[in-house]
Amino acid sequence: MKIIAAPDSFKGSLSAVQAADAMRRGIEAAFPEAEVVMVPSADGGEGTLDTLVSSNNGRKKAVTVTGPLGAPVEAEYGILEDSGTCIIEMASASGLELIPKADLNPLKATTYGTGELVKRALDDGYTTFILAIGGSATNDGGAGMLQALGMRLLDEHGEDISFGGGELKNIQRIDLSSFDPRIAASTFVIASDVENPLVGPDGASYVFGPQKGADFRMVQELDGQLHHFADKAAEATGIKLHHRPGAGAAGGLGGAFQAFFPSRMERGVDIVLSYQQFSAHLQGADLVLTGEGRVDAQTASGKTAMGIAQAAKKEGVPTIIIAGSVGDGAEALYEHGVVSVNSIMNRPMSLEEAIRDAEGLLQWSAEQVVRSYFHKGVRKQKGVF
Amino acid sequence: MKIIAAPDSFKGSLSAVQAADAMRRGIEAAFPEAEVVMVPSADGGEGTLDTLVSSNNGRKKAVTVTGPLGAPVEAEYGILEDSGTCIIEMASASGLELIPKADLNPLKATTYGTGELVKRALDDGYTTFILAIGGSATNDGGAGMLQALGMRLLDEHGEDISFGGGELKNIQRIDLSSFDPRIAASTFVIASDVENPLVGPDGASYVFGPQKGADFRMVQELDGQLHHFADKAAEATGIKLHHRPGAGAAGGLGGAFQAFFPSRMERGVDIVLSYQQFSAHLQGADLVLTGEGRVDAQTASGKTAMGIAQAAKKEGVPTIIIAGSVGDGAEALYEHGVVSVNSIMNRPMSLEEAIRDAEGLLQWSAEQVVRSYFHKGVRKQKGVF
Repeated sequence: MKIIAAPDSFKGSLSAVQAADAMRRGIEAAFPEAEVVMVPSADGGEGTLDTLVSSNNGRKKAVTVTGPLGAPVEAEYGILEDSGTCIIEMASASGLELIPKADLNPLKATTYGTGELVKRALDDGYTTFILAIGGSATNDGGAGMLQALGMRLLDEHGEDISFGGGELKNIQRIDLSSFDPRIAASTFVIASDVENPLVGPDGASYVFGPQKGADFRMVQELDGQLHHFADKAAEATGIKLHHRPGAGAAGGLGGAFQAFFPSRMERGVDIVLSYQQFSAHLQGADLVLTGEGRVDAQTASGKTAMGIAQAAKKEGVPTIIIAGSVGDGAEALYEHGVVSVNSIMNRPMSLEEAIRDAEGLLQWSAEQVVRSYFHKGVRKQKGVF
Repeated sequence: MKIIAAPDSFKGSLSAVQAADAMRRGIEAAFPEAEVVMVPSADGGEGTLDTLVSSNNGRKKAVTVTGPLGAPVEAEYGILEDSGTCIIEMASASGLELIPKADLNPLKATTYGTGELVKRALDDGYTTFILAIGGSATNDGGAGMLQALGMRLLDEHGEDISFGGGELKNIQRIDLSSFDPRIAASTFVIASDVENPLVGPDGASYVFGPQKGADFRMVQELDGQLHHFADKAAEATGIKLHHRPGAGAAGGLGGAFQAFFPSRMERGVDIVLSYQQFSAHLQGADLVLTGEGRVDAQTASGKTAMGIAQAAKKEGVPTIIIAGSVGDGAEALYEHGVVSVNSIMNRPMSLEEAIRDAEGLLQWSAEQVVRSYFHKGVRKQKGVF
């Protein structure tokens, strides 16, 4: 019996590595003889760097950069020694979680720190990048990042524009001449599930602006600013970002990569699974257990459990999900190879209790689902158990 | 595919009938073609009467009787028309739940109302009784019940003693001459899991007195009173109740049945399963689902889920448990044919939420466990789901 334990992190309580280990203990409690392969996973959001670093002979390097509102923050990037890949989570430099909620302001917030992280990694000699771009506090179209890497976004006086999504309209001309030449010689894989265009009702500002602190008037303003930026980018590169799928990811940072970087966008979970050699592990497997803090209708749009199930299904291996919370619409996962969607909860409890006890709860529920799946203790002959 | 849905009630939220129906809907959501047999169950405690009445062409009859502290209460007994059996829950006349916690007093509480219920049922012509004796507020050795049925428990002045476990020491003599003669011509099956003796450190007063409101000094007092009562019962009948297993059930009511009634004691769940023809339903079944509000180490001592699993195991059918709360020690059930012990919870929530949403939660979890058990959606051939 071979079982793959491939959870994402349980946000706020367990890292993916801890979750995989709890699943392993639960499986082994039911079947001591089982072969359990731990493949901690992630979807390109928070935890992606930690998961890949901890599973791929990696290490992290701390770098002080410009935070989203200008104050310095301690960010980090990861290096996977085996492949020489550098992993950057934009959220560590320009993320929502770096700012108190009341201070969120996408008119001001900049991706400059993300650019500094990239520059530092280039300085350190890396040429292969994974950019995880979830969780941004910004709506600046990646302007800050581009500036940090030497691009000139010039106003009518020939001066560099300031930080934030509210400054883009001042761009008269984009000057590429001093843009870091090492970028063209590198490769950037952008981990993102977002397919939204840069502008319009489905664009970055309208869809994601509100969670970054924008009210409706600010959303309209931001959308106009991004539109102007896209016009100027098109003048400089010939690439019209406005309606390109994925250009609206991370407040338009996705668009900056599309226009100015040798890059491709992939679903975060697929990048992670590729680095974790998930397909190889699936060979001969009887079951995959995955899970994350919450599973619901959103999960079907590219979160970890969905990506795991789809990859496993391709190899004919069924997947069982164990989540902290199961929300409405989780049944949409059935058609992607998911046998069942279970919760770690074993009693009424507060969120705080669930977070505190998550490890033991996950272990217990993993034990129960594999017992059910493999009919532990059952011999269908009458009287023989 | 044949699945038996045989839950107990989920105390405070779902009757056993409602729980079985929620399980049915969950199973049918996963397997519309499944044959689902609903066998609502009980363990002789609260809900036993309702479960049997609702599944056996039964009805209930309201009777006003003397409550545990003397005030009248509206009690009821059940009649199963098919078998002519009368079911009496002592808790409906003499139960803990009839008294505010602050007023609990086993020195005063009486089983007189339970005796009135029996008398009324005898008046109505019934001769076959199930007595469910869980949940008593009393520690009177069944003295009140015996008095209600005509027995004279006489003090030194030849007067009947008063109500309560604190009056037994006044008994000088038991006069059986006016004890209702119809009792000897009836049969009484006592539904009880309690094997405690009447007196001593494992007896009714020491073990169950505290939950009925007795402090340590009162427990000592009550134990002495029951000892005296047992002495007098032995003088009258030759039967020494003191250390008989089960005589300590329901504050010694179990002993009263043993000494003065044509009775036998059976585990509540076994009585219920027999009336529900559970063994017949098990023929050809692939799986039993059972459950109740809470499952833990106590469950292995004769509660519904345990009884169901044991009965199913005898016929070679595995059992899966779905509980509201799963507590420590539930793994003790594995060896009794239980495949897994699951919870209905799908997220952190309060007890109030769990009670409010129990029906939908149970339906969902039943769907998930049968999907896991029967590998819904899985074809192990590569690429074919």
